[in-house]
Amino acid sequence: MDHMIEGVLKFRSEIFPQRKALFEELSTGQSPEVLMITCADSRVDPGLVTQSQPGELFTCRNAGNIVPPWSRADESNTASIEYAVTVLGVSEIVVCGHSDCGAMKGALAPESVAALPQVAGWLENSRAAVAAARSRHPDLEGEALLRAVTEENVLLQLQHLRTHPAVAAVLASGKVRLHGWIYDIGAGDILAHNPDTGRFESLTAISAAAA
Amino acid sequence: MDHMIEGVLKFRSEIFPQRKALFEELSTGQSPEVLMITCADSRVDPGLVTQSQPGELFTCRNAGNIVPPWSRADESNTASIEYAVTVLGVSEIVVCGHSDCGAMKGALAPESVAALPQVAGWLENSRAAVAAARSRHPDLEGEALLRAVTEENVLLQLQHLRTHPAVAAVLASGKVRLHGWIYDIGAGDILAHNPDTGRFESLTAISAAAA
Amino acid sequence: MDHMIEGVLKFRSEIFPQRKALFEELSTGQSPEVLMITCADSRVDPGLVTQSQPGELFTCRNAGNIVPPWSRADESNTASIEYAVTVLGVSEIVVCGHSDCGAMKGALAPESVAALPQVAGWLENSRAAVAAARSRHPDLEGEALLRAVTEENVLLQLQHLRTHPAVAAVLASGKVRLHGWIYDIGAGDILAHNPDTGRFESLTAISAAAA
Amino acid sequence: MDHMIEGVLKFRSEIFPQRKALFEELSTGQSPEVLMITCADSRVDPGLVTQSQPGELFTCRNAGNIVPPWSRADESNTASIEYAVTVLGVSEIVVCGHSDCGAMKGALAPESVAALPQVAGWLENSRAAVAAARSRHPDLEGEALLRAVTEENVLLQLQHLRTHPAVAAVLASGKVRLHGWIYDIGAGDILAHNPDTGRFESLTAISAAAA
Amino acid sequence: MDHMIEGVLKFRSEIFPQRKALFEELSTGQSPEVLMITCADSRVDPGLVTQSQPGELFTCRNAGNIVPPWSRADESNTASIEYAVTVLGVSEIVVCGHSDCGAMKGALAPESVAALPQVAGWLENSRAAVAAARSRHPDLEGEALLRAVTEENVLLQLQHLRTHPAVAAVLASGKVRLHGWIYDIGAGDILAHNPDTGRFESLTAISAAAA
Amino acid sequence: MDHMIEGVLKFRSEIFPQRKALFEELSTGQSPEVLMITCADSRVDPGLVTQSQPGELFTCRNAGNIVPPWSRADESNTASIEYAVTVLGVSEIVVCGHSDCGAMKGALAPESVAALPQVAGWLENSRAAVAAARSRHPDLEGEALLRAVTEENVLLQLQHLRTHPAVAAVLASGKVRLHGWIYDIGAGDILAHNPDTGRFESLTAISAAAA
Ligand SMILES: [Zn+2]
Ligand SMILES: [Zn+2]
Ligand SMILES: [Zn+2]
Ligand SMILES: [Zn+2]
Ligand SMILES: [Zn+2]
Ligand SMILES: [Zn+2]
Repeated sequence: MDHMIEGVLKFRSEIFPQRKALFEELSTGQSPEVLMITCADSRVDPGLVTQSQPGELFTCRNAGNIVPPWSRADESNTASIEYAVTVLGVSEIVVCGHSDCGAMKGALAPESVAALPQVAGWLENSRAAVAAARSRHPDLEGEALLRAVTEENVLLQLQHLRTHPAVAAVLASGKVRLHGWIYDIGAGDILAHNPDTGRFESLTAISAAAA
Repeated sequence: MDHMIEGVLKFRSEIFPQRKALFEELSTGQSPEVLMITCADSRVDPGLVTQSQPGELFTCRNAGNIVPPWSRADESNTASIEYAVTVLGVSEIVVCGHSDCGAMKGALAPESVAALPQVAGWLENSRAAVAAARSRHPDLEGEALLRAVTEENVLLQLQHLRTHPAVAAVLASGKVRLHGWIYDIGAGDILAHNPDTGRFESLTAISAAAA
Repeated sequence: MDHMIEGVLKFRSEIFPQRKALFEELSTGQSPEVLMITCADSRVDPGLVTQSQPGELFTCRNAGNIVPPWSRADESNTASIEYAVTVLGVSEIVVCGHSDCGAMKGALAPESVAALPQVAGWLENSRAAVAAARSRHPDLEGEALLRAVTEENVLLQLQHLRTHPAVAAVLASGKVRLHGWIYDIGAGDILAHNPDTGRFESLTAISAAAA
Repeated sequence: MDHMIEGVLKFRSEIFPQRKALFEELSTGQSPEVLMITCADSRVDPGLVTQSQPGELFTCRNAGNIVPPWSRADESNTASIEYAVTVLGVSEIVVCGHSDCGAMKGALAPESVAALPQVAGWLENSRAAVAAARSRHPDLEGEALLRAVTEENVLLQLQHLRTHPAVAAVLASGKVRLHGWIYDIGAGDILAHNPDTGRFESLTAISAAAA
Repeated sequence: MDHMIEGVLKFRSEIFPQRKALFEELSTGQSPEVLMITCADSRVDPGLVTQSQPGELFTCRNAGNIVPPWSRADESNTASIEYAVTVLGVSEIVVCGHSDCGAMKGALAPESVAALPQVAGWLENSRAAVAAARSRHPDLEGEALLRAVTEENVLLQLQHLRTHPAVAAVLASGKVRLHGWIYDIGAGDILAHNPDTGRFESLTAISAAAA
Repeated sequence: MDHMIEGVLKFRSEIFPQRKALFEELSTGQSPEVLMITCADSRVDPGLVTQSQPGELFTCRNAGNIVPPWSRADESNTASIEYAVTVLGVSEIVVCGHSDCGAMKGALAPESVAALPQVAGWLENSRAAVAAARSRHPDLEGEALLRAVTEENVLLQLQHLRTHPAVAAVLASGKVRLHGWIYDIGAGDILAHNPDTGRFESLTAISAAAA
């Protein structure tokens, strides 16, 4: 904890003074353009990876970057999305998975989380991704299967997002776009889903090609 | 979106190479000591404010940094906490609210979110904080009342955390400590709840006093 | 009731003897190829409209031909689908709406069902369809708007179906196909969704074109 | 699917023209007298068995012709009933089970549906019927036990219906009558529950006796 | 509180020594024959009114002596009943309402509890009783209507009890009997439902007639 | 049952006449100062143990004297508390456990209630108490462990009570006090939790010390 407190003191004495104008402006309101939904994993720092400034990413995080299908009874998973879309008026929604995700490993091996009833239940929301990955790629295993499940999970959660009335409304009017990303920790890269090819492709490569 | 993609490219070309060893090490596992529960607000960047490195903060984020009371039926709010406490074995849990929080404003003025059924429902989890703030400080209004509610909300969510069996078990054995924080965006400071005084006090001041 | 009993007696004395072999065969098992999900409306008779024999259509019916997004807690809407897909192994799933649907009228005019709390709640599952129809066709009203909502509702329920793990698994492997239909009562026709054009087109017309 | 499309074309060219006046009248409204709740089983065609015309039976269908006990939170099972009773003003409600029902077999042998979590959960709504059948008839097994469970299940679902406020209100005023039926597929007959004898008796026999 | 503590001291010094043998025997187990479900109202003391000894009545109490219809998801209302019936093997279940019941008044006048969301929701479980009372006795109002609702509520909760699988099983085998009672506070009498007459009749009168 | 009816007749002829004035006064209203939450166990008679008169204790009883954490969806456990605190304005809330509690034994040995799904689910609300007891007292077993769990359970349910908004509001304003009690059946004594020592202490001893 001392380590964290030192960090706060350093932030206050070194970082804050340099960006004081930004923080002053932000102190009375936010107007982010992006709703970022990503894993709670400690290795994922969406601000760092996208080099975003405070004020740019409205960020929901939970184990497995999961968005359960819409349910009127479940406000936990719908309130923040409703708020981002309706009140803040974000124009981009990113669901971002990542390499080596513990939640995806748990979804692939339910017996490994059998002693964790809540985790096991939560990962039911990724069960369709596991089923799809196994069904589409019957030969994969290990790392490659984990990657396939991670990809299917991002696509599934985007599917789930479309069942949220607030999201469906802005999608129909074209006011919001959905994006599926995977952050590769060891490679320092983002792979984005390309709906045309149906594949996850490196943003670096896409950008190079576009240049 | 182009802005974000540029950010990713910049991360990849400038930041990643500098910390390559760290990312390589992280690519195969995490062992964070802290579970950080904070608001989805775009102005809150827990990694920046605590000057943490990737790998240090397992981070759950939703509108209002809310932890509903434990319910077996609600895995959304219990799975990530169960995972952090039981699988990762974090030793510190921080619930971190912040100044100018839209969720707290909504909790204070339910009529302002009446058209947002899911948000309104979600903020019921902060109703006890509003009731407590009004009851303890009948004279407050405006900014001061918002601050009081923000503080009570952090304390309420810590109370809710104690109802989670996974948390209760490690609290009883002293393996985990709970912390209530408020991030003051305009001041660039963290105020931490001091159980002895019952007040939220600046980490800067505390640290100065300790020195 | 006398009327119905007379109908049963007529069935027993006139219809049953003619198809006795079929009923005998069916008395020990079913192997339908189609899961038909349609409205409870008394004017909709899926067996009649598709000229199907007993044994061909596994049929789920409720007000509004609604399939809520998957939820582990809600067995009402998932059990029959899980059974049809996993146990019976159907290869086609049809969601069939219809003209003049009271449920769609209720979804369009929530105030008209305000005194019916359960109906009002149930139609929340069509709220995204209303939002999408209004958003895509801001000029429509009356009959035309009702038709647009009925179409969007069929597409929305197909979207919801894709969130059911049992369905996602067989879709990924290509074992099942989804179909969106609308039954036009006064015209005696079925309009089927054509994913290529994005429109609902008369089966009669499609068939004529194919001939 | 081609088979079904052919059926639709046949309906449109041969059946529809013959009953055009009926369909025209129905195109603007329904006023059924009967709410029929029956199994989704493909072999059950309530319109055929009762020789009903379109417009006569408001029909809810799910695996096992189950009506869960009323719960405010569960709109799936209450909305269609509330609509039929309150808006349409039906005067008869029939719960109709059938011979060789897969759902009843599953309820009798829970281990056979253990791999189908949603089906298993749904059939909990028939658990009291299994308990009652075993308790009343400790010696039965096989076919006879299945028949006893099917009967108890129809009676149980009628019991459940009485817990729905909309139904309780019209029952108290005598505006609606409840009926328990079982459709015997191989015999082409309906057995109706006779509250006086406590037995399910053939409509054919009852009718003959009344003549 | 002092008053209660004095009561405990009095119990310990005066009452306990007199019945020491009973309490000693009870200290290692209970075997009650009756499950008593009654209102939380402070004026209702089931032990006093039935002159029962400790160990005789397994007692569930809540506002309105309500037993919601069975629901697998709702353990609050099913666990104690399941325990009493299955583990303790009670042979009688009494649902006991009472005169001047605040819960019944709330059920009759929903607007009076509109500011109490949980109470309002809970009393939905008595809505069918209000509907039935108004429907059967359109002319009643005031005291007489309250009495009618109280009676219908007892009968409704007995109906709900029959939907609990544990209860259904023992009812089918005749191991348990259900009783509907109303305690008239001012008259010091119990009125028991007589299934033959359909009326609630004074136990005193019944007993006198039987003598 | 005859035994109970005799008890009622005895109450009516012997007890009621003696306290007629009290019952007359109570016949039109209640104003209890205490909300008593205790186990449904037949050996627990809160009126007897506290020597209370009718009208003094608003009493909620269920297996294990459990108060689940607040949940908007769960009115069973919140309505009676909301009513007692908000409508009746009680000033004391007592959660009272007891020696030899079957529910606590079930919580300690989940395998012993595995065949009782609802009981098993309900006792999940005491899981944190078992975890805390085992964690704080790793050496205890048998009677001593049962006593420790019973104590932790009372404290846990008090913790849960604090998550109820209606309770939080009156606690913040100091209008209500919480008490944790354990009734020792064989000793005829009440042990009350002393927040200063963190121990449960005999009311007799406390009272003697105070004298
Ligand atoms: Zn992850
Ligand atoms: Zn915030
Ligand atoms: Zn319809
Ligand atoms: Zn069936
Ligand atoms: Zn009452
Ligand atoms: Zn107990």
